[in-house]
Amino acid sequence: MVEAGSDDIQAVTAALARGDIRACARIISRVERAEEDLVPLLRALYKAGGRAQVVGVTGPPGAGKSSLVSQMIRVWRKRGKRVAVLAVDPSSPFSGGAVLGDRLRMADHTCDDGVFIRSMASRGQLGGLAKAAGDVLTVLDAMDWDVIVVETVGVGQNETAIIRHADVVVLVQTPMGGDDVQAAKAGINEIGDIYVVNKGDHPEADRTVSQIRDMITLDHHLHPESTWIRPVVKTQSILGQGVEDLADAVQQWFDHVRNHPETAAARARHRVRHRTAEIIRDTLDKRLLRDEEQIVDSMIDQVVSRHRDPYTLADSLLAGMA
Amino acid sequence: MVEAGSDDIQAVTAALARGDIRACARIISRVERAEEDLVPLLRALYKAGGRAQVVGVTGPPGAGKSSLVSQMIRVWRKRGKRVAVLAVDPSSPFSGGAVLGDRLRMADHTCDDGVFIRSMASRGQLGGLAKAAGDVLTVLDAMDWDVIVVETVGVGQNETAIIRHADVVVLVQTPMGGDDVQAAKAGINEIGDIYVVNKGDHPEADRTVSQIRDMITLDHHLHPESTWIRPVVKTQSILGQGVEDLADAVQQWFDHVRNHPETAAARARHRVRHRTAEIIRDTLDKRLLRDEEQIVDSMIDQVVSRHRDPYTLADSLLAGMA
Repeated sequence: MVEAGSDDIQAVTAALARGDIRACARIISRVERAEEDLVPLLRALYKAGGRAQVVGVTGPPGAGKSSLVSQMIRVWRKRGKRVAVLAVDPSSPFSGGAVLGDRLRMADHTCDDGVFIRSMASRGQLGGLAKAAGDVLTVLDAMDWDVIVVETVGVGQNETAIIRHADVVVLVQTPMGGDDVQAAKAGINEIGDIYVVNKGDHPEADRTVSQIRDMITLDHHLHPESTWIRPVVKTQSILGQGVEDLADAVQQWFDHVRNHPETAAARARHRVRHRTAEIIRDTLDKRLLRDEEQIVDSMIDQVVSRHRDPYTLADSLLAGMA
Repeated sequence: MVEAGSDDIQAVTAALARGDIRACARIISRVERAEEDLVPLLRALYKAGGRAQVVGVTGPPGAGKSSLVSQMIRVWRKRGKRVAVLAVDPSSPFSGGAVLGDRLRMADHTCDDGVFIRSMASRGQLGGLAKAAGDVLTVLDAMDWDVIVVETVGVGQNETAIIRHADVVVLVQTPMGGDDVQAAKAGINEIGDIYVVNKGDHPEADRTVSQIRDMITLDHHLHPESTWIRPVVKTQSILGQGVEDLADAVQQWFDHVRNHPETAAARARHRVRHRTAEIIRDTLDKRLLRDEEQIVDSMIDQVVSRHRDPYTLADSLLAGMA
């Protein structure tokens, strides 16, 4: 199939492959505007990618994720790794350059071309945010980063969808009372390959670490087939304490999946299934927004007068879409 | 078409028509569980409904919506109207009986069978919250309420989708500085048929009222075709001040649309279009969740190995859905 602008696709792919940050920023902006003609490029970039370790970092608001990521960048840089960060804030109206915690991080890592930080927000974003985040990760993954961090506040469905793009998920918690740990239990067992208890100088920190460890041990008894025993790392992100341990834990995950190809394959399949379903959902959504305006007026009036109902009308229209 | 359980449908429709609160609460719980066999009932209830005035109340967190609604209930009850309230909190994990501000309202209106208050939240909610809220409104509308209030925090897309189910939207603001008014301008012009400046005892209250009035006047010059000039009502919801004026403004809206059938028809069509599109989207979403698990493994593996890409796979699957 000859795509219009296939020269362009080759040029952009080459620019990203040699680490052209400006080209990267330009493409990400186009992804955020949800340009439809971007799909051929994204197809090519997907096939060119797959080198980076994609690390998801999530947790409740105020857990210190931003400063923790900033410290992790420092450790990774010391270890010679090139790092890109995509910070997704579904509640923020600001998108683009550096916002919120990123300003702080930017100041820490400015003038270092081995670091790239980008924020995404929901406002100004056409279509699904999680789907768009997946597209941005596809762009970043076509470059020469060793590590790509995708960071998001872990609360709603939208955020879970974003973090599912990562190879490994770091769940950041803060020290909490016994009741809170119980309440967090369900959520903890659902997501997270590596647990962090940040604010490690808090008096409850050690107790929280051991409570999470107990839960993991129990869960492992219930699911003995899982080969990875989730580690719990205590950090203090302002002082940078425990961050080397966390970077080690992340590396151990990637070593582990290299030695357990069946785990790696299951994870990769799961991600592709999720990603493909997300693209399908986004496509259907855009198609529907276009169709919404065209729902025949006479049908509408029958529903307005209650001679028909919207459920039946929806069925008729769905049948027509097929 | 003979539906299984059509006796049941007649019995439930009759129970709701005579105002059976327990039957109502039971059906709402089934809507929240997104039971699929509920559609035939919802079809019947939709056709039986359409009597109530559906009043949307929205605004930023902390604007005092809950206490304002509680005061409005008091005024409506004094005027002999029976009132149901659906409070939708997309950020709350709690659903069901009385939560948050509802506890307060419940205490005010307890032992009054002319008042029904129900909360909905996103957690535990399968499928779209806005679509489910529409279903609950369909249930309530099949009863004998004079007024149905749908209340939600006005921030994201989800909330806007919820408030679009209402016949008239009351937008609650608080007194604010000049810059904030400018910032709020875009949002104010998008939604709201009646504006409220709550916390009317605040020193900035009168200035905020007149600034919003200026914006409305300007907007009316730009859109002289609109027949309704949006009123601005100053209230103090704790003391109950201005609430009679607000109830009057709501009644004036319904008088206005009765005298302007073309406005009423345009609004009703808009709502049906929105509602139908929402049901279609929800149906597609559920279908996709079911299909997601069945995406053929060999196709997935080709994407995992980067011989194919998820965009192409999504296209193939979409073609197969048609």
